[in-house]
Amino acid sequence: MTTDDIVIIGAGNLATQLAKNLYKHQHTIKQVYSRSIENAQLLANEINAQAINEIKKMVTNAKLYIISISDSALQDFTNRFPKVNGIVVHTAGSMDISLLSKFDNHGVFYPFQTFSKTKTVDFKEIPCLIEANNTQTEEYLIRVAKSISDDVKMITSDQRKQIHIAAVFACNFTNYFYRIAFDLLHEKNIDFDIIKPLIQETAQKIEQLNPAEAQTGPAIRKDMNIINKHMDMLNNHKELQELYQDISERIMNNKS
Amino acid sequence: MTTDDIVIIGAGNLATQLAKNLYKHQHTIKQVYSRSIENAQLLANEINAQAINEIKKMVTNAKLYIISISDSALQDFTNRFPKVNGIVVHTAGSMDISLLSKFDNHGVFYPFQTFSKTKTVDFKEIPCLIEANNTQTEEYLIRVAKSISDDVKMITSDQRKQIHIAAVFACNFTNYFYRIAFDLLHEKNIDFDIIKPLIQETAQKIEQLNPAEAQTGPAIRKDMNIINKHMDMLNNHKELQELYQDISERIMNNKS
Repeated sequence: MTTDDIVIIGAGNLATQLAKNLYKHQHTIKQVYSRSIENAQLLANEINAQAINEIKKMVTNAKLYIISISDSALQDFTNRFPKVNGIVVHTAGSMDISLLSKFDNHGVFYPFQTFSKTKTVDFKEIPCLIEANNTQTEEYLIRVAKSISDDVKMITSDQRKQIHIAAVFACNFTNYFYRIAFDLLHEKNIDFDIIKPLIQETAQKIEQLNPAEAQTGPAIRKDMNIINKHMDMLNNHKELQELYQDISERIMNNKS
Repeated sequence: MTTDDIVIIGAGNLATQLAKNLYKHQHTIKQVYSRSIENAQLLANEINAQAINEIKKMVTNAKLYIISISDSALQDFTNRFPKVNGIVVHTAGSMDISLLSKFDNHGVFYPFQTFSKTKTVDFKEIPCLIEANNTQTEEYLIRVAKSISDDVKMITSDQRKQIHIAAVFACNFTNYFYRIAFDLLHEKNIDFDIIKPLIQETAQKIEQLNPAEAQTGPAIRKDMNIINKHMDMLNNHKELQELYQDISERIMNNKS
């Protein structure tokens, strides 16, 4: 007989934050599995669960199994995973739902946010993107997602993969550009704090304007005077100079 | 004899927001100059000033002249500007203070933020970066800056130019990446709203972590499985594919 318990597979950033939020909202987390028993124990202690590091010790009558491990480990783990009656989901942006098709009830539970170990985020505002292989599973996953998030959406695997690529540009690459700014400022002994209001405002603007409308700077104005001056100043940073030129040309040509 | 009046030269985004904030904080704006009398009048009406579009009509006894026009127009305008006793400043990130050396008292008043016509910003939190050619001018500009901003800093021309380049990366280029995300989502009929929490969190993170620590995503994990998958998915967007590869390699190689 199936219980209402949840089993968490993985103890990384996402698994940790998701498990804690489920626990906080009255869900029973039965077990935490990780290849490292220490990592499993660290998380298990916080959510009153059992830590395990062997698949054979996993309960087979849980209602929900959330697999939150690296994409590369996901396929192998799924192969070794016993066939269970409960619902089995993964949390990966770029993996198809069909990866879990050996389970009668399966789906995807993708909290769309960037997670770091040292920065907690409020799950209430995180879009939870759900996909399921049947209506019953879908309804259950939506219920669970709504218990921790105010923003639950049904999304297909095809859409989710595109969302993941969009996120690489809007989050990962964007943060890399913050880092370039950090290094440029550091080089002239300028504290990074000076640019933080600009970074926040740049992000805030797209709450009101779409990014094409919000675009400012020398490239969109085709201000070759400044662009050439910046190119000269980057003479000692050939790789940054190339990048500056590439992105400026893309903006000038309205490419995307 | 010099009055306490301010003359604003320019009626663009920055000139408009700066003039309004000065007016709000009890400064007297005597005149607004713009080549277009209509633009000058629009701003002048809001701040109880006189609109002019001829340099010969400009009062010569104001305390402060703020030139906030395009970099390319700045040099020519400065040449035609009469020699006045008041302080003359420009507001340009990438222009040297020496551009104004024909004036006995001159400086730079650079509000370090991105301005759009349709989005108002709170000047209180905008770093105002000041430079001056003598102590008296410096003290006066700091006093004016502090009347509208809580974040006033002395910055050299050399530092300011570097700050401006850093801003192109952290603001203009970042916004361009938001735009790429917008277009990718639009292509699959996904509302841009879905990615807004991620964009905000990405910006918020650097308030607590430095950008190198905050970096997430497939490239920093050297996750070739996802990177190759994304490269395949971008096969119909050759230019985005090149960009994805370039930035991913930079992140993987820790280049900046």
